[in-house]
Amino acid sequence: LAAQVTTAYTLCWACVRNFKLILAYDGAGFAGWQVQPGKPTIQGELANAIEELTGEKVLPQGSGRTDAGVHGLGQVASVALQTVIPLENLWRALNHRLPATIRIVGAEEVPADFHARYCAQQKTYRYRIYRGDICSPFLANFVYHHPYPLDEACMLRATEAIVGEHDFTSFAAVDPEARDNPQPRSNVRTIYQSALRREGEELIYEVTGNGFLHHMVRNIVGMLLWIGKNSLPPEEMARVLAARDRSVAAATAPAQGLYLVSVQY
Amino acid sequence: LAAQVTTAYTLCWACVRNFKLILAYDGAGFAGWQVQPGKPTIQGELANAIEELTGEKVLPQGSGRTDAGVHGLGQVASVALQTVIPLENLWRALNHRLPATIRIVGAEEVPADFHARYCAQQKTYRYRIYRGDICSPFLANFVYHHPYPLDEACMLRATEAIVGEHDFTSFAAVDPEARDNPQPRSNVRTIYQSALRREGEELIYEVTGNGFLHHMVRNIVGMLLWIGKNSLPPEEMARVLAARDRSVAAATAPAQGLYLVSVQY
Repeated sequence: LAAQVTTAYTLCWACVRNFKLILAYDGAGFAGWQVQPGKPTIQGELANAIEELTGEKVLPQGSGRTDAGVHGLGQVASVALQTVIPLENLWRALNHRLPATIRIVGAEEVPADFHARYCAQQKTYRYRIYRGDICSPFLANFVYHHPYPLDEACMLRATEAIVGEHDFTSFAAVDPEARDNPQPRSNVRTIYQSALRREGEELIYEVTGNGFLHHMVRNIVGMLLWIGKNSLPPEEMARVLAARDRSVAAATAPAQGLYLVSVQY
Repeated sequence: LAAQVTTAYTLCWACVRNFKLILAYDGAGFAGWQVQPGKPTIQGELANAIEELTGEKVLPQGSGRTDAGVHGLGQVASVALQTVIPLENLWRALNHRLPATIRIVGAEEVPADFHARYCAQQKTYRYRIYRGDICSPFLANFVYHHPYPLDEACMLRATEAIVGEHDFTSFAAVDPEARDNPQPRSNVRTIYQSALRREGEELIYEVTGNGFLHHMVRNIVGMLLWIGKNSLPPEEMARVLAARDRSVAAATAPAQGLYLVSVQY
């Protein structure tokens, strides 16, 4: 009887606590966010750390996937746990168990209806292009090295063309898992901010929107690079966007320059 | 006959050019400097790049080995080649073929008697200890994270005890390949500078000497950490040094905090 009572207590719905975790990670050593058998992933490492600590087998939900090599500065995950460990201790103990290239940089208890993916309102991504001749080996996994000529003025003007609500089919990966937010069959997204700036030897692109299709930021950056290489006018960006055809746009920029900066709720 | 002449020309001793290459590398993805079958190493990658470019099978000689995970800022290698490629083109083409986490940051043609290891006069190493509570995942492979209490004043005073000529047996790895410079059977080395400083959240140790035994810098840092943890006086460092016994000294500090900064000739 005692065992039954304990079991009933452990599984009591009222005891479930919902957590919002903010994660930073160096994506270089991982096969992306999403759990995959036999490969190190951010989601998999987080699930392992939680199971080691609490004994609970759960799959933390991210705000969206990041691909292999893509970095996180403020990825958000939600996870429901029955543990009684106080928040601060849970946070510290998970960091102790996680690989040092993944850190929980923020943690809070949130209402049961919070879901990192379904509740996300806005996301911001950053892409770093290193323009210097020789790129430090310590930056190699953290920027895209492009030392060749680029017409940065043309690129700057082209960034504005994607602001607003558009069908981003031309910038969506052609694959069946193309969406990182739950709006099936629609490739319409709204971009609030799209900006390019110079910081020393780096050209930095930052974009904020209500959601992003798979590879969308890397495809936009690929298009910006194409425009920069050929000194094309900003109309080229608008033309490709209007075509709603992936095959007319430029190649996907490499993963290692991309950062998921933050998610707003 | 033409083929024979060409062969003779290719192998003509007078055509051999000796190169000094200065290398920077992120050691995280490599099994150290020294070539090993089936494992990525700095020396192996450099040899591969040279062979791909010139067709010449050579083994570039480093100023000394660095262990797996140890980084290079100014490692020096020498290599004799028969290629007629101009220096600047050779440098650029090798960087193009090397992994992006290894860069040749300096290159020059040197007299035939230059050897990166035998001619080295001084070396400088740096060790980075991160003292903050949560270490950025982007620093994880580049510092040793030690957020626990340390008496930094005691550590600072202990750094002076190793300056000068000493037998460093207490700080030498107990293995048959213990030496990174060609003074067989002697563990005597001269340290010119040994300094500890704070830079924000980092505690940085820098040491310059005429040569270093295998693991010597990491063992000195291990000893400094031991002194810091227990608030021991600098005499502890001198006592352990005088014992000439590895077993009385502290554990080896982790590889990822260590950098080979420069080699003087």
